[in-house]
Amino acid sequence: MIKVGIVGGTGYTGVELLRLLARHPQVSLTAITSRKEAGMPVAEMFPNLRGHVDLAFCDPQQAGLENCDVVFFATPNGIAMQQARELLTAGVRVIDLAADFRIKDLAVWQKWYGMEHACPELVAEAIYGLPEVNREQIKSARLVANPGCYPTAVQLGFLPLLEAGLIDPQHLIADAKSGVSGAGRKAEVHALFPEAADNFKAYGASGHRHLPEISQGLSQFSGESVGLTFVPHLTPLIRGIHATLYARVVKDIDLQSVFESRYADEPFVDVLPAGSHPETRSVRGANTCRIAWHRPQGGDVVVILSVIDNLVKGASGQAVQNMNIMFGLPETMGLELIGLLP
Amino acid sequence: MIKVGIVGGTGYTGVELLRLLARHPQVSLTAITSRKEAGMPVAEMFPNLRGHVDLAFCDPQQAGLENCDVVFFATPNGIAMQQARELLTAGVRVIDLAADFRIKDLAVWQKWYGMEHACPELVAEAIYGLPEVNREQIKSARLVANPGCYPTAVQLGFLPLLEAGLIDPQHLIADAKSGVSGAGRKAEVHALFPEAADNFKAYGASGHRHLPEISQGLSQFSGESVGLTFVPHLTPLIRGIHATLYARVVKDIDLQSVFESRYADEPFVDVLPAGSHPETRSVRGANTCRIAWHRPQGGDVVVILSVIDNLVKGASGQAVQNMNIMFGLPETMGLELIGLLP
Amino acid sequence: MIKVGIVGGTGYTGVELLRLLARHPQVSLTAITSRKEAGMPVAEMFPNLRGHVDLAFCDPQQAGLENCDVVFFATPNGIAMQQARELLTAGVRVIDLAADFRIKDLAVWQKWYGMEHACPELVAEAIYGLPEVNREQIKSARLVANPGCYPTAVQLGFLPLLEAGLIDPQHLIADAKSGVSGAGRKAEVHALFPEAADNFKAYGASGHRHLPEISQGLSQFSGESVGLTFVPHLTPLIRGIHATLYARVVKDIDLQSVFESRYADEPFVDVLPAGSHPETRSVRGANTCRIAWHRPQGGDVVVILSVIDNLVKGASGQAVQNMNIMFGLPETMGLELIGLLP
Amino acid sequence: MIKVGIVGGTGYTGVELLRLLARHPQVSLTAITSRKEAGMPVAEMFPNLRGHVDLAFCDPQQAGLENCDVVFFATPNGIAMQQARELLTAGVRVIDLAADFRIKDLAVWQKWYGMEHACPELVAEAIYGLPEVNREQIKSARLVANPGCYPTAVQLGFLPLLEAGLIDPQHLIADAKSGVSGAGRKAEVHALFPEAADNFKAYGASGHRHLPEISQGLSQFSGESVGLTFVPHLTPLIRGIHATLYARVVKDIDLQSVFESRYADEPFVDVLPAGSHPETRSVRGANTCRIAWHRPQGGDVVVILSVIDNLVKGASGQAVQNMNIMFGLPETMGLELIGLLP
Repeated sequence: MIKVGIVGGTGYTGVELLRLLARHPQVSLTAITSRKEAGMPVAEMFPNLRGHVDLAFCDPQQAGLENCDVVFFATPNGIAMQQARELLTAGVRVIDLAADFRIKDLAVWQKWYGMEHACPELVAEAIYGLPEVNREQIKSARLVANPGCYPTAVQLGFLPLLEAGLIDPQHLIADAKSGVSGAGRKAEVHALFPEAADNFKAYGASGHRHLPEISQGLSQFSGESVGLTFVPHLTPLIRGIHATLYARVVKDIDLQSVFESRYADEPFVDVLPAGSHPETRSVRGANTCRIAWHRPQGGDVVVILSVIDNLVKGASGQAVQNMNIMFGLPETMGLELIGLLP
Repeated sequence: MIKVGIVGGTGYTGVELLRLLARHPQVSLTAITSRKEAGMPVAEMFPNLRGHVDLAFCDPQQAGLENCDVVFFATPNGIAMQQARELLTAGVRVIDLAADFRIKDLAVWQKWYGMEHACPELVAEAIYGLPEVNREQIKSARLVANPGCYPTAVQLGFLPLLEAGLIDPQHLIADAKSGVSGAGRKAEVHALFPEAADNFKAYGASGHRHLPEISQGLSQFSGESVGLTFVPHLTPLIRGIHATLYARVVKDIDLQSVFESRYADEPFVDVLPAGSHPETRSVRGANTCRIAWHRPQGGDVVVILSVIDNLVKGASGQAVQNMNIMFGLPETMGLELIGLLP
Repeated sequence: MIKVGIVGGTGYTGVELLRLLARHPQVSLTAITSRKEAGMPVAEMFPNLRGHVDLAFCDPQQAGLENCDVVFFATPNGIAMQQARELLTAGVRVIDLAADFRIKDLAVWQKWYGMEHACPELVAEAIYGLPEVNREQIKSARLVANPGCYPTAVQLGFLPLLEAGLIDPQHLIADAKSGVSGAGRKAEVHALFPEAADNFKAYGASGHRHLPEISQGLSQFSGESVGLTFVPHLTPLIRGIHATLYARVVKDIDLQSVFESRYADEPFVDVLPAGSHPETRSVRGANTCRIAWHRPQGGDVVVILSVIDNLVKGASGQAVQNMNIMFGLPETMGLELIGLLP
Repeated sequence: MIKVGIVGGTGYTGVELLRLLARHPQVSLTAITSRKEAGMPVAEMFPNLRGHVDLAFCDPQQAGLENCDVVFFATPNGIAMQQARELLTAGVRVIDLAADFRIKDLAVWQKWYGMEHACPELVAEAIYGLPEVNREQIKSARLVANPGCYPTAVQLGFLPLLEAGLIDPQHLIADAKSGVSGAGRKAEVHALFPEAADNFKAYGASGHRHLPEISQGLSQFSGESVGLTFVPHLTPLIRGIHATLYARVVKDIDLQSVFESRYADEPFVDVLPAGSHPETRSVRGANTCRIAWHRPQGGDVVVILSVIDNLVKGASGQAVQNMNIMFGLPETMGLELIGLLP
């Protein structure tokens, strides 16, 4: 059994980790920390966990995280970078669900996240935890930077075409829509039900933190620095991301077979039949990314549609997938979830 | 492995049966019928099942249902009663998710359902599939009448107090609220998103088909014919029923211990701590009924709050629970689901 | 033109007052205060008001409220009671949308609201602004206590039957459901979209602040102290309250004519035909209360269904209605709004 | 007073026309037809209209439409073209909210709408009712083709930049999101609440009927045939369209002043301050189009955000605006509506 600790379990990625890990056959949940809620049974805050998780939140100092095999950070940005070094030194492997270790260029990171990085040397070591790209490196990683939700949906959508050099990397557009849980479980007016229900809006159109993370990945796939316009939107979903991607096709080959062969062995990427439109609800609660593509009017524009559950494949599910890879378990263990539809 | 057939798989209880049975370790899905959609892969209609269910809908005549160990009817009212006799004769056990066999008094049934009953003799034999009441009889039942969604939530809420004679059975009130999936996957204007979203209304306040089913159960618990007012409401949930129950307390003992001891051994009824308010989302996708009670201002009125997912404990999950009981499997097999929150 | 000031305009009752008053032909909006947002144009916070309201929030000290004809308090509980005396002395009439002046019994108020009352002498003078009951007194009132949202829906539902002595006042039940805007525009976790969407729950079942307000009103209608059980619920609506009321009928006369004649001259209470089920969306954005009643199975229980928009007839619309009465304007002026359906 | 008839009043554009026209000071509602619902009071189907609209649906033959000054067709595609000629001959002016007269190229129309056109000669005469473009011609039009909802949002967004030759017309992208009421009040499974709630998907990505309508308009603005990729999406809103538009900037001038000066005199187009993100709810129930633009990272891509209420500026409100223009009334009469927020 793998001894697992979770730092910062009171947010949505925390409760989702618990939902997944509580039923994972090879995991022993050891500690879940929250300075503020120390002592409160987890299932009191998240009643869906009643009967499944007996732990109480504990103070980080008393958590004994150094005795875990792996620690997940389900914390705001800027926390993991302060605690990772000590855990790694103690032989604990670390998966950070926040953004601390995702961007290799420290200057870029510091610009977008507005703080100095606390342990630059680990940024270089950290493996970006997108298994469809970095599976081999994840196996032996001590420190995994779990991708962001938008970056997962967008990268998986563009990946096959960029790798194969089939689209113009200089004029990529990612029009992405996210459910409100993507904003976290923070008390903020803009995320209140009466503000976010029956409402649709773009935000961060002039610049969003996930832009450099996506660009870094796409540039790697493409082999050259890409030109990307990324516009995120807030839509009245609890969970779900839908990325609509636009690119110019530069080589005219059968795109369906490109997608299908690239993802043939991927357990969590599902390429739909040609002409399909994936729905976010088909992956609600599941660790799946569903993808389809279109070439409207047979022109040179390809439209790629990519959906994930932002809390599963876009966060906690992908983190568990990374854990499975790191510990040599079957990659799908504990993640054979069927989307909740309706 | 139990060979399972499903008649009428294109509705919400059908897709929910598939979600549960596809991951059930002792079930072999043999056939799922739909006259109208014969030939279409199930996962084409319900894309959440892609990769989990390979079956296509088949014509009932070609389904070979007589070779199944058990057949679920996820059909409109009035279908199972026409086909059950033949299946039972062939040695197949039957679980009907519709209302054909729920009401023992044929005249009452015919009045509320507006049709003549096709096999009255089976009504007498059928076991009402509320495991918390009829577990022993379900074990050997050939034919199980799976309870309705409202009746499950209301009966489990009143059960401990009526059995113990603690409330006045002549003045019971059940104010129940249901998500829209309770109306089924039928193309009807009143259930359209623009009609049902951001809207709340009562319906059937003067009389609803679930009234006689609930009354029959409550009268059995009480030992006398009860007086019940039942008002259902439609609320903008996809899934979920919340029953708010009102009764007059006639004997002053600790109600918390009454609830807790009645349900101590029930795997799917969760009595919350005193003073709690169960949320429907805590059971979203789970086979759990969560219950709490209040005595406002310490008066003689008890308020019982009971929540279920109408498609799981209120339909398909309870049907699988009944199957487990009928076939001697652990009752929780395939049903250890954690509610999807958020 | 009536010079109008609003204290505390950053909440939902504030923006709703502005929506109504901006189009009111006899109102000149003079000042809207917010200490925190002083200087920000109102239409920047509430973009629906762009082109309709040019005011900016101003500091209460600079607002010149003493020069207004009437001041609305759209503030949290406990603010109006600190400022009302001074305004009244300056000859300004006051309408408080909060609870400071609603309850005549100071001890009861102080118990439920957890603070000492700052000007008890005004409590006695204040008129409870339910026009259907107190229209005459409102005309000359200096200080109007605008009713709460639940109290409006519940009182208007019970009023005709209690006044006529047709129901047992000792066993009244009010099962009420509210949209999330009823909780105000405060950053609180429980009101976040991912918490409140696709979820239904009761709250305050053991006691809610609106209980004494409702009881006070019902007791007045009945002529005796009533026995009331009141259970509020949160439902995923932006706006809307649905009250389902239960009572025992003690005199057998035609209830439809009782409702219709009681409300024959009321512009904002609409009695539906017998057997109807009012929908909250039919009053979305409108100052209307729609009511219907049922006697299930012809028994002695009457079920009354009463719907309002909590921000209009349950708050700001009723406040404007009171203003119209106080200033001798046609009661419907500025309020002839049609519900937004769908 | 203008005598107004409505053909086909049982859909969402019909009830919205009634909501607007019932309060229009210069309109006398004369007839509203529905073959199927003839005899039913309109307010019985749409209870928000109780007390505001006394008409009943009447059979088209008995409606006396030939005595109206103007008739609105709120019908499915293909109806108006069969009845318009007769009404025009009788001297009645016609506003068609469907697509029968929107597209000048008959072959294109017939391809996308799958039927032969019943009166090609009127297609040439019909004026496309986008007042911001065709105001002068609308004044004297006998027959107005009211624009589609997507086409309104997309055209108003691109208009200033295409007219001024500031963007490359060959590579335009319109990623548009619509609320479910855009699908009409038809009983279809995909629009049921449990299908459309908490779900997001694209549809018609390979080709949608609004594409040729939009292209026709954009080509007119641009003076050359445009290259447009248009992808519509369904989002869980009751009302609202959000168009996110992408184009390549070819001339570097201050875009804000271009937008502001183009729409300076337009009562129903509101250009937001630079850097804004318009929200659909800010126009809920209002006849306003709100627009903002961004140039992410100062690059050569311009992102334009355009929101409307699909039932108001995207359908019935724009139709009333056209009527006002046709009859020499103030263009804003009856349309000075403030968005319902929250």
